[in-house]
Amino acid sequence: MANADIGLIGLAVMGQNLVLNIADHGYNVAVYNRTTAKMTDFIERAQKEEPSRDRLIGCEKLEDFVKAIKRPRKIIILVQAGKPTDAVIDGLVPLLEKGDIIVDGGNALWTDTIRREKDLKAKGLYFIGSGVSGGEVGARFGPSMMPGGDPEAWQHLEPIWKAVSAKVDPESGKPYEDYQPGKPITEGEPCTAHIGANGAGHYVKMVHNGIEYIDMQLICEAYQLMKTLLGLDAGEMSEVFGSWNEGDLDSFLIEITTDILQQRDPADPSKFLVDAVLDTAGQKGTGKWTSTNALDMGIPANAIAEAVFARCLSALKEERVGASKVLQGPAPEYKDDKKELIDAIRDALYCSKICAYAQGFQLMREAQKEYDWKLDFGHIAKIWRGGCIIRARFLQKITDAYARDPKLVNLMLDPYFKDALHNAQANWRKVVAIAATNGVSAPAFMSALAYYDGYRSDRLPANLLQAQRDYFGAHTFERVDQPRGKFFHVDWPDKARPQVEA
Amino acid sequence: MANADIGLIGLAVMGQNLVLNIADHGYNVAVYNRTTAKMTDFIERAQKEEPSRDRLIGCEKLEDFVKAIKRPRKIIILVQAGKPTDAVIDGLVPLLEKGDIIVDGGNALWTDTIRREKDLKAKGLYFIGSGVSGGEVGARFGPSMMPGGDPEAWQHLEPIWKAVSAKVDPESGKPYEDYQPGKPITEGEPCTAHIGANGAGHYVKMVHNGIEYIDMQLICEAYQLMKTLLGLDAGEMSEVFGSWNEGDLDSFLIEITTDILQQRDPADPSKFLVDAVLDTAGQKGTGKWTSTNALDMGIPANAIAEAVFARCLSALKEERVGASKVLQGPAPEYKDDKKELIDAIRDALYCSKICAYAQGFQLMREAQKEYDWKLDFGHIAKIWRGGCIIRARFLQKITDAYARDPKLVNLMLDPYFKDALHNAQANWRKVVAIAATNGVSAPAFMSALAYYDGYRSDRLPANLLQAQRDYFGAHTFERVDQPRGKFFHVDWPDKARPQVEA
Repeated sequence: MANADIGLIGLAVMGQNLVLNIADHGYNVAVYNRTTAKMTDFIERAQKEEPSRDRLIGCEKLEDFVKAIKRPRKIIILVQAGKPTDAVIDGLVPLLEKGDIIVDGGNALWTDTIRREKDLKAKGLYFIGSGVSGGEVGARFGPSMMPGGDPEAWQHLEPIWKAVSAKVDPESGKPYEDYQPGKPITEGEPCTAHIGANGAGHYVKMVHNGIEYIDMQLICEAYQLMKTLLGLDAGEMSEVFGSWNEGDLDSFLIEITTDILQQRDPADPSKFLVDAVLDTAGQKGTGKWTSTNALDMGIPANAIAEAVFARCLSALKEERVGASKVLQGPAPEYKDDKKELIDAIRDALYCSKICAYAQGFQLMREAQKEYDWKLDFGHIAKIWRGGCIIRARFLQKITDAYARDPKLVNLMLDPYFKDALHNAQANWRKVVAIAATNGVSAPAFMSALAYYDGYRSDRLPANLLQAQRDYFGAHTFERVDQPRGKFFHVDWPDKARPQVEA
Repeated sequence: MANADIGLIGLAVMGQNLVLNIADHGYNVAVYNRTTAKMTDFIERAQKEEPSRDRLIGCEKLEDFVKAIKRPRKIIILVQAGKPTDAVIDGLVPLLEKGDIIVDGGNALWTDTIRREKDLKAKGLYFIGSGVSGGEVGARFGPSMMPGGDPEAWQHLEPIWKAVSAKVDPESGKPYEDYQPGKPITEGEPCTAHIGANGAGHYVKMVHNGIEYIDMQLICEAYQLMKTLLGLDAGEMSEVFGSWNEGDLDSFLIEITTDILQQRDPADPSKFLVDAVLDTAGQKGTGKWTSTNALDMGIPANAIAEAVFARCLSALKEERVGASKVLQGPAPEYKDDKKELIDAIRDALYCSKICAYAQGFQLMREAQKEYDWKLDFGHIAKIWRGGCIIRARFLQKITDAYARDPKLVNLMLDPYFKDALHNAQANWRKVVAIAATNGVSAPAFMSALAYYDGYRSDRLPANLLQAQRDYFGAHTFERVDQPRGKFFHVDWPDKARPQVEA
């Protein structure tokens, strides 16, 4: 009866692909979906795939599904975050036995995961929140997987997670990507590791997505500058991004940008498709969560937030079209060497990217204090090298940085990144100045630069701000020549008003 | 027995001052405080003030306090937001009678106010959330007051609110500020108006505070640029701000900056105090709420968020001091005309300020849809002209703009502000370019400019971003040549991977 090594609930595309991936690695998988037709359709699809077809156990009833799985049961849930996830858990709990393990593979809010883990532990069940990144293709052939929860439960999952996740060549740090159904990649370093207790995995996945937002926005700004100032067409820009992909910027997102920009429009193959795509970006919430959490914890992650706001602004298409007829700006012009500006934009992108990742890692550093996690930042960068959307050569450098100094205060301070910033910053500054002068909106390049210049300032103008707060609200201030924690107040002259007795 | 026209609970400085203000206008006020000593001390303080002393009724017991107030009772709560406010309400409710009115004058989260109003309405009681801005001095002599709640209850409060709020000269739009205890200002336009239903008043107060954050940050950036690039000392900058206060920037915050910069250090009068103040800004949460709400609603309020993040970054003093020894930047230098740069910084401040207010008003516009409020934006600007921290000549221009077009889509589109932006933008761009080139952190100037240039773009690079999302996640996209709401997907070439059947 109980032949399945693991079960999965929720057969949308991500769920289907993950099941096929697990089966490819020799595991039997029980599957269940609320709408039975989705399950039977999937089993039919799987018949075409070797060797998956013999390893799937389709179940119409949740009871049968649970019974089909070997104990301790491992059950992955891949349904919508929030209430749908709670509903599935509530349905499962009465059917499970002590020591069984529920895994949430969706994009849950990490505080929900903390709550669920606590609730289920009280019932003798394990709960693992495991972020999964890599889109549909990643799920099918090797995603990056970020599990958080009880280490005892993780031991049961570890062999499967290590098998199905993406693999990276330990020499080059590059992922193996010669994917074939039924021929899983078994060598290399797996892109998964136990992240920490309860919500740690989902938290780290959220930060991954926040970084993804800014990575994409930076590419968009580079594109916009080349288009506006140099008049490059999509095909020419594809070549530029292709050449960047040979250097420090080598990454999945740069690679697909190269592909995208040379894609012809199916409706008119004489044109590039990107020019026909509407410029309104959608979002699913993880970038917003990252920014909100940054604000809550008081961590300056302004570049990540700017990427979210840039999507918001893009969505106001009608307003922008209206405003474009009213609000004037300079006529963009750039008369110097094209190649020089392209190189400068590349440098601006790289420097901004370093700042964006620095912000993401600062968030994780603060969150681990808040939630008492022990995060291994080098390892997190390591499991992002393959499978996930932000995979990049760059991540090996982050792993190296934390290997050099596991207590690194900020990524920018690592010798490699420090030197990279020093060497490229003149070009970065030039690009920001050119964008400002020519009226090209570049919120991510600019906010990253403001972050860099603010972070390296031993003296920011917040002294004036604290004096203002003390002036109108008696909020007090500290002094540079007195110990921290000693607060001062001055009876500021308010010429227009008599002094108030307090 | 019931001689009091109104009652107030919570005798911290704001509460005390508001009571004296109300009494100055001829009303009898019952007062109560959980710690009785605070109440008796206050009554003692009030003995020195004419004519307040005969108009205060100090109550040791909550029951007596409630009985002392004429029906329908009007009771202002001025305690800490959150649980303390709920606790006071819970204590009051059993003592009140149908039709009595509770007013929360604190900085409540507007969603709490919506919840409380609903709960109390079910009990036959009115609840008004009335934001109060102006700090201690404003509370004493005339704050800006933003009440939201049932219009019936507002009718009972209106005479008192109109009496005690700040007053503005209807001709000049400037507040009367010749404050004297016992000699209340009774002429002019009062800085209060019914904002809307339930949480509208607290929402508008929150946005006011978000704008206050960015107003202060812009002044700080102007200060930092003059200090770093021109080497001006505090006294010289005081003169600059003083001259700016004669023009379009005329405002309370510029005025107090003028005062602050010429303030001598009490510890060493040969020096300016501001140079001894530690550069770490505190915050109390309303700026964070504004930014979080912007993210939640999808409204690009990036400049406001940057102001919050700038405070976060300032708080990392030790990290910054450490980083300043590692991370290099250009040696700041500016060799052109001093006066020209000062004028350019003034223009950059003014343009950025327009963008910041535009963002604040966009938030209110979106919130009124979300909560079904009917906000009068011109009136909101009007009641901010006096009493509150962001009071400024500028606000009359906003009132005028909404008078010209009550359905104005964005403040920047109003002819006055449009022209102001057109005339000053060259200088704004110049300042951003100079800040970038010289390594001076200017997140607010920069983000406001990116907002301006993004908002006036009929074509942002989000087309590329949507194509990326479709490439890796099959998120689909719309097309420029097809109706909105029609979604497309392309089978992007993924050279490294076989096509996945979905």
